[in-house]
Amino acid sequence: MSTKLSNAACARLGEAAWQRMPKVNAELFSLTYGSLVTQVIKDYEEVDKINIQLEKMGHNIGVRLIDELLAKSGLGSGSPCTFRETADIIAKVAFKMFLNINADVMNWEANDAAFTIAFGDSPLAEFVQLPAHLQDLKYLNIICGVIRGALEMVQTEVDVTFTRDILCGDQRNEIRVENRGKVKLAMNDDYGEN
Amino acid sequence: MSTKLSNAACARLGEAAWQRMPKVNAELFSLTYGSLVTQVIKDYEEVDKINIQLEKMGHNIGVRLIDELLAKSGLGSGSPCTFRETADIIAKVAFKMFLNINADVMNWEANDAAFTIAFGDSPLAEFVQLPAHLQDLKYLNIICGVIRGALEMVQTEVDVTFTRDILCGDQRNEIRVENRGKVKLAMNDDYGEN
Repeated sequence: MSTKLSNAACARLGEAAWQRMPKVNAELFSLTYGSLVTQVIKDYEEVDKINIQLEKMGHNIGVRLIDELLAKSGLGSGSPCTFRETADIIAKVAFKMFLNINADVMNWEANDAAFTIAFGDSPLAEFVQLPAHLQDLKYLNIICGVIRGALEMVQTEVDVTFTRDILCGDQRNEIRVENRGKVKLAMNDDYGEN
Repeated sequence: MSTKLSNAACARLGEAAWQRMPKVNAELFSLTYGSLVTQVIKDYEEVDKINIQLEKMGHNIGVRLIDELLAKSGLGSGSPCTFRETADIIAKVAFKMFLNINADVMNWEANDAAFTIAFGDSPLAEFVQLPAHLQDLKYLNIICGVIRGALEMVQTEVDVTFTRDILCGDQRNEIRVENRGKVKLAMNDDYGEN
């Protein structure tokens, strides 16, 4: 990724990438994701385990989706970027080009150690209402996994947590992303140098 | 649905509806659907059971998606249509507005009892390769279920089967839809007259 990407530049890249992307109907996507969550609920029963499984599935998606982001967003795959740039790329490029969501970066913590991505209604959660026994379900936890998986592929280890959720009565969705540093080199030894 | 819809009129409605639809990225959809199939494979193990489960999930989606089709396609919900019109609506309107796929109706059988929908690559199956032990998996069987569920809501009972599959080496995908007649009235007694 190239350095010195401004928030506005990311927003332009995100919009342009979104225009170019092959697309499908958002409601079909929403219902398909609903089937996935329903199946996971049936399989794992306990809310904590369901949340973990959704995050894991997201991780698997993220490690593949990063290629699409780098190849089709116009970001290139040049020099590494700062954590602040990473934040803008996630919120302004990735959320836009994959979900057509306008998300914002906020709440930077000391030493740029963590930030929050805030967004409104998501096409994934449209028409969803959580039943009483699933109030702690993080319905969109798959997104946390996608972010973690994608960043892992660019050697950045993060903890990602859903902190506010419209489905639970919050005014908007918020995802906190905490920098855990470089991915350990051992993970990349297999690949060697190109 | 209004009567006397030509194939070309359906194609125009499908294209216009597709332009209007809220959308998401097709690759994200493809990967999310891949997660769903992977989970179902893990849960049901035997290929026949996996195929049945995918079809059932599709049915649940279809009974909801029909509202979107009728509300947003411009078809309206007026007088019932013939099975030939139904075929064109599925291939030219529904496939277009939900998946951005240009599908064709072919192979009409005697007395209009069944037809085949043919289409090329699907965004759902992009990047998919079936492993040797899953050669009989009908990866896109969810689509059969969607068609069955949607038609059930307009009182048409159908058998839907995936008959050719690009993932299994066929040149294109084909889905056969057989008319089983009107849905039994008992199903609608709950609703009464509006």
